[in-house]
Amino acid sequence: MAEAASRRISVLGATGSVGVNTLDIVSHHPGRFEVEALTANGSVDVLAEQARRFGAKLAVVADAARYNDLKAALSGSGVEAAAGPEALVEAAERPAELVMSAIVGSAGLAPTMAAVRRGAVVALANKESLVCAGELVTSEVERCGATLLPVDSEHNAIFQVLDRAQLHAVEKIILTASGGPFRALDRTAMAAVTPKQALAHPNWSMGAKISIDSATMMNKGLELIEAFHLFGLPEEQIDILVHAQSVIHSMVAYKDGSVLAQLGDPDMRTPIAYALGWPERIEAPVSRLDLAKVATLTFEAPDDRRFPSLRLAREALRAGGAAPAVLNAANEVAVEAFLKGGLSFLGIADLVERCLQENPEMPPQSIEDVIEIDQRARQSAKAALPKMAATP
Amino acid sequence: MAEAASRRISVLGATGSVGVNTLDIVSHHPGRFEVEALTANGSVDVLAEQARRFGAKLAVVADAARYNDLKAALSGSGVEAAAGPEALVEAAERPAELVMSAIVGSAGLAPTMAAVRRGAVVALANKESLVCAGELVTSEVERCGATLLPVDSEHNAIFQVLDRAQLHAVEKIILTASGGPFRALDRTAMAAVTPKQALAHPNWSMGAKISIDSATMMNKGLELIEAFHLFGLPEEQIDILVHAQSVIHSMVAYKDGSVLAQLGDPDMRTPIAYALGWPERIEAPVSRLDLAKVATLTFEAPDDRRFPSLRLAREALRAGGAAPAVLNAANEVAVEAFLKGGLSFLGIADLVERCLQENPEMPPQSIEDVIEIDQRARQSAKAALPKMAATP
Repeated sequence: MAEAASRRISVLGATGSVGVNTLDIVSHHPGRFEVEALTANGSVDVLAEQARRFGAKLAVVADAARYNDLKAALSGSGVEAAAGPEALVEAAERPAELVMSAIVGSAGLAPTMAAVRRGAVVALANKESLVCAGELVTSEVERCGATLLPVDSEHNAIFQVLDRAQLHAVEKIILTASGGPFRALDRTAMAAVTPKQALAHPNWSMGAKISIDSATMMNKGLELIEAFHLFGLPEEQIDILVHAQSVIHSMVAYKDGSVLAQLGDPDMRTPIAYALGWPERIEAPVSRLDLAKVATLTFEAPDDRRFPSLRLAREALRAGGAAPAVLNAANEVAVEAFLKGGLSFLGIADLVERCLQENPEMPPQSIEDVIEIDQRARQSAKAALPKMAATP
Repeated sequence: MAEAASRRISVLGATGSVGVNTLDIVSHHPGRFEVEALTANGSVDVLAEQARRFGAKLAVVADAARYNDLKAALSGSGVEAAAGPEALVEAAERPAELVMSAIVGSAGLAPTMAAVRRGAVVALANKESLVCAGELVTSEVERCGATLLPVDSEHNAIFQVLDRAQLHAVEKIILTASGGPFRALDRTAMAAVTPKQALAHPNWSMGAKISIDSATMMNKGLELIEAFHLFGLPEEQIDILVHAQSVIHSMVAYKDGSVLAQLGDPDMRTPIAYALGWPERIEAPVSRLDLAKVATLTFEAPDDRRFPSLRLAREALRAGGAAPAVLNAANEVAVEAFLKGGLSFLGIADLVERCLQENPEMPPQSIEDVIEIDQRARQSAKAALPKMAATP
């Protein structure tokens, strides 16, 4: 089969797990992709190696102090080197048809917006863009004719089975949630949970922050907010369903009684390949789902009482304005404190709730506003920390 | 929301379960559909009542001897009456944009072909059209620019999630099977199965023939043959998976690792509504799937040894030509004999196998050939019956 004409891509956050998996898919399809720009936070050596291997035109390190290191590592390669936050934005502005936006945290906001503003296809793995700046991003997407392709498995699943030309025929979106390692724990047992216990996620191998978010189910709360912005359905039409095996990645229910779902073995290279090839499907070197082997799939309603993060995220989404950004910032501070032993597991949601109540910020009008709200919410959360009861 | 312009439909087999459910969906969408022709096998009173209620232009009874009864029942209604096999074909030829082909058995072949030949959208519930005359039907569909919309739940599910523009990206189709009431029985226990036990289907309320086909899993074998003709994928790319709850109606696996599925509560009005509204989705008054309530879905590989019908159907499909028609005819004779106590449960597959071996028919070149093959295979099966050991 003839490969399609090659597609020019940039990968923002190339050395993180999404970035590395993106380049894995690229290497699996020789001749199909050309790499324009690659960026990293500080992993200069890995970045330089990637840039050489994929023949990137530009490599950017976010940490301006690492410019000389990058320059040296790229010596003789012909790859242009740049550093600093403005250079990240420049990388996004380079003429790539598709930009993989996989920078972690609020540093990803400005480059994502830059890619959106030139009407690119943006494969979105940066959570903050939609959680904290949902209205800003989606209005710019519309204004500039950009396309957002969600990369995380739940939203990608929905994207695959959502008929956007017939949103009126959609009854609801059903986000599935593994329920995390404490799915069956009661509140008393949860109060005694240690960071080590919380870090053991049953299905996905993930970083510490997202593992804790999975244990509190805040990850699903954040995904609820993202889904709201991505798919244009009211919050009441977005359900959460606990599905411990993470085989059904999410679903869309239609008014004829049909529920369409995307399933698969948990491997982020499937949604990444989907985004890279879109609207064509390309091969991904992932293990194939064998349902006879999986044998059993289970489902249960989520419990807002045991997992208050779900309720808090829904409240923040309903409140709108700055509330989702405050939710996200307070949660990051809380998770970090929990990991360091300075906050109990149940204290995470308590701190987030306290911050949501105490931080009536104005709706952000710009990415700069979002970053300011984020920083003020972090300070406020840190200030509140000593007041929270710290249990093991 | 404004309803789309009204769509003219005909229902062939209006008084059977698919026909009745079709008209239920029609009545649920006042102004959306106009009824051109309705046909029935012999239920004149029901047909006349339907024709009056839906303002049909033509009502046809297949049994020519019932013409006067139909004429009388329609007296004063303004509905034209007709009777006999040629009138069934005429009903299919009337200018309806969509024809629901729901006549049971080989009597549905000629009318289905007539609808195909005028390039209509044909919602297909008549199994024989594809099982016995697959190549004939699909080549005419292509030649005449007709559209086939499968109505049974498995093929409709596949139709909903199959990207026909990217068949090269499909790794396989996965037909789900309830496994029937004897899913867990060994061969010894199966040998003693009575018709009464076999008629108790766990998930769907169905007629006697299809219930026995479900118990032997021949229904899935026939669906395998249908899927082959409907979707243009080689037989090796069509898998069967036992899924006792019948919630996932079928799936398509793509080469990026994605498996797309259609789920729902078992209710034929969902695929019927899908076909009637296609390419738009319209509301169906069916109960909505509640996975938290279903709680558990299970999957297992099918067992060709305990369910030899699966192997026989695959062999007939591979053999091609007249073999699928022989398989179908022999199975009908066998099921009837089993229901009347003249053949054991395990004898059903034995008789089918014997007929497949003994009936090397020529590939059919026309619908008339298909009907002849069907009739000869039935005679041959009946002749073989006394030679089969009849156990309870």
